[in-house]
Amino acid sequence: MGSVHRRVSERGWEGVAAEAYADPELAGVEKHELIGPADGAAAYRVRYFRVPVGGRTALERHAHDHGVVIEHGRARVTLGDERHELGPGDVVYVAGNELHCFEALGDEPLGFVCVAPPRESGGDIAS
Amino acid sequence: MGSVHRRVSERGWEGVAAEAYADPELAGVEKHELIGPADGAAAYRVRYFRVPVGGRTALERHAHDHGVVIEHGRARVTLGDERHELGPGDVVYVAGNELHCFEALGDEPLGFVCVAPPRESGGDIAS
Repeated sequence: MGSVHRRVSERGWEGVAAEAYADPELAGVEKHELIGPADGAAAYRVRYFRVPVGGRTALERHAHDHGVVIEHGRARVTLGDERHELGPGDVVYVAGNELHCFEALGDEPLGFVCVAPPRESGGDIAS
Repeated sequence: MGSVHRRVSERGWEGVAAEAYADPELAGVEKHELIGPADGAAAYRVRYFRVPVGGRTALERHAHDHGVVIEHGRARVTLGDERHELGPGDVVYVAGNELHCFEALGDEPLGFVCVAPPRESGGDIAS
């Protein structure tokens, strides 16, 4: 059976717990796993990330890829050796082993949906 | 290498072609494959569907699952034998072989992001 997670606030969904990061450089960054193993989804995970004003996600590379849709705010996106300034509705594909970082620009938080393969196929918990 | 698809209009992205459906019951429904094999993405596809006022997607079931995030508009969602009225930010997981349909309610088009596994694992072109 499928499931529904209603958005109940700007940063909250029914049945979805927000996760934070221990790294002080990522203070205030929240990850919400909207769809994943808890729903029975075995093929991919759908997450929402909220980056506070002035914040950023980890600058990192790893074997698994990401599919990203910007939901709100402005982003400076590092993608390999490129940088892009993006906004709502813009789409980013981060290939496997490609350096990437999402930084909030301006005076509002950055929110984006980020799809990743299941953890079993090379993902880690943090990203 | 990854890729960026900037949103250039309410219903258009750079480097992404809109697809329509031959079925007259699905007139006006557009599918945009935002991320997929054309980007080198092998593990999942990220699509955006736009359903016109008064329209709906196919009422169907199939082996592959869907992960959906409502972007704009109001939806009446059929999920198995349940119906849910949902709006922006709400999330739906459609399990494999579960009956589903997304219908636009009210006077604005419905838009949603829909993740699916690659076609090779049981998906078809239409959904």
